[in-house]
Amino acid sequence: MELQGHEFYRFMAPRLTLLVSTCDKEGNPNAAPFSFVMPVSINPPLAAISAAHKRHTLANIRETGQFVLNLPIESIIEKLHVCSDPFDKGVNEIKEAGLTEMKSVVVKPPRVEECAAWFECELEWEKEAGDHVIVIGKIVKAEVKDEFMKDGAFDLAGAKPLLHVTGTNFALAERIVHVHR
Amino acid sequence: MELQGHEFYRFMAPRLTLLVSTCDKEGNPNAAPFSFVMPVSINPPLAAISAAHKRHTLANIRETGQFVLNLPIESIIEKLHVCSDPFDKGVNEIKEAGLTEMKSVVVKPPRVEECAAWFECELEWEKEAGDHVIVIGKIVKAEVKDEFMKDGAFDLAGAKPLLHVTGTNFALAERIVHVHR
Repeated sequence: MELQGHEFYRFMAPRLTLLVSTCDKEGNPNAAPFSFVMPVSINPPLAAISAAHKRHTLANIRETGQFVLNLPIESIIEKLHVCSDPFDKGVNEIKEAGLTEMKSVVVKPPRVEECAAWFECELEWEKEAGDHVIVIGKIVKAEVKDEFMKDGAFDLAGAKPLLHVTGTNFALAERIVHVHR
Repeated sequence: MELQGHEFYRFMAPRLTLLVSTCDKEGNPNAAPFSFVMPVSINPPLAAISAAHKRHTLANIRETGQFVLNLPIESIIEKLHVCSDPFDKGVNEIKEAGLTEMKSVVVKPPRVEECAAWFECELEWEKEAGDHVIVIGKIVKAEVKDEFMKDGAFDLAGAKPLLHVTGTNFALAERIVHVHR
């Protein structure tokens, strides 16, 4: 079946979802989920998010040059979704959602404590692309919760990261398969 | 636990994996899996991949300005992995993997028939970012296999897209959860 251009991303799914925390220049925290995200470079460590122009996240990153990519997990799915509500700029979604702010090590925006991993970022550059803006961040500090490490690697089956499908639908990647060659 | 910068992407996982098909200026097809991918813009429809400099995919996109993003599914996991082997430039990974070329509608690079959906792309722009290059494609034709449509939406649980974890490990997103509010 042929797809309309604007619906393509519903089929480029499910997509790993990150909760992006920022703060404005007065220090008011903000957090919003993004599924247009990807790692970009390994050394230096860079990651990208694609943000709609009206997003407070984008305005805050422009004000401060900093953000945190938090990896949300199944246990906070309802709270994560509260963060996607259209709150006014300056409203603290972390608090509204019943999540917990946690001090970052290098950057000013807080981490979200209930997440499995945190990637503190400094803005490298941004570039407009269609109706969104691509934002590239350099990871200046990365940490994973000890409980989600297993045999020296990420315990993904234990953490259950959230993958966005559409609207209020998420997929959980619980079954790990191995290529046998 | 603190993470080294270069290992951050192992924790930004699992990541939706796309099989990117291209051809060189002589028309020789190539296909390689990428998990550094994301939708970027809805209207116009844009998607991004981040490619290491040495990738034949990148060389081919520079030669022809075109590529196809194919959505691989569980049934071809072994074949997908063959496409990630370091073949010489000009070798047809689609054939080597036992996959089937299928004519694209708008662009010259072929689709991979066994995939669930195809996004034919024209190069919009590229930009170096660390040790990779971000490539932005405009989707000029998108199609999904009829068998993976259900109630007017993508039957993700039926298609079982592959999500890359590390090395030969993939995750399958079979369980769909809904936010109740």
